[in-house]
Amino acid sequence: MSLHDAYDDQNVFAKILREEMPAVKVFEDDKTLAFMDVMPQVPGHVLVIPKYPATNLLHLEPDFAAAMMLTTQKIGRAVQQATDAPGFMVAQLNGPAAGQTVFHIHMHILPRHDGIELKMHARGMAEQSELQTMAEKIRACLE
Amino acid sequence: MSLHDAYDDQNVFAKILREEMPAVKVFEDDKTLAFMDVMPQVPGHVLVIPKYPATNLLHLEPDFAAAMMLTTQKIGRAVQQATDAPGFMVAQLNGPAAGQTVFHIHMHILPRHDGIELKMHARGMAEQSELQTMAEKIRACLE
Repeated sequence: MSLHDAYDDQNVFAKILREEMPAVKVFEDDKTLAFMDVMPQVPGHVLVIPKYPATNLLHLEPDFAAAMMLTTQKIGRAVQQATDAPGFMVAQLNGPAAGQTVFHIHMHILPRHDGIELKMHARGMAEQSELQTMAEKIRACLE
Repeated sequence: MSLHDAYDDQNVFAKILREEMPAVKVFEDDKTLAFMDVMPQVPGHVLVIPKYPATNLLHLEPDFAAAMMLTTQKIGRAVQQATDAPGFMVAQLNGPAAGQTVFHIHMHILPRHDGIELKMHARGMAEQSELQTMAEKIRACLE
């Protein structure tokens, strides 16, 4: 998989957008969707994806890039509040060399606490009930 | 320094925006500035900052958040080309707990190559001439 490969509409996030696969959603608007990462690096790990078929940032329509950032800001604020985190990281990985594992562009929102290391990406599934509980907390922090 | 602290206009990036300190610039528009990180984690490490006094993403005007992302996309594409990187990472750190060291919001653009680890943030200064050479390469890749 190179940065310049064509979009594969059978990727997991494309299936989530088509509702062929479930996701624990926290927010949705006309251009973006935010949902819980099923393999969280830390509790409260949320992904924001544009509703646009782009493998990575090189292929994303600028309108959707802007929309992805606006949703990231909104959800980042809610995630920080919901987890009472003293910090949070926003990250977006392009290409396997950067650690990208699902080839629909996505933004990671990761609450950070002093002394709590991030787990490696995509190593273990979270309990569905934990994700649901966290998603409810985050949604409650959205105005 | 907490996520909610007021903006300190004596931070380094505020001084760069006021041209009280130099920077190796790669791009500028009305809302954003992109320049070489003087302590690069990897060659081609560029920062994108909004021309708005926000400590972190919680305090940024949405218009500037969108503009920061659009510039990040534009510069990310040029950095990837200039470094011939098979991947690149975009990251934005909020609060010391997340690793933020300069308290004017900024987006990191980091080319990634298989097997080349990122250096720890903010550990060593790069040679000015290396930054200039890289900035020229990146500017040449901007349409």
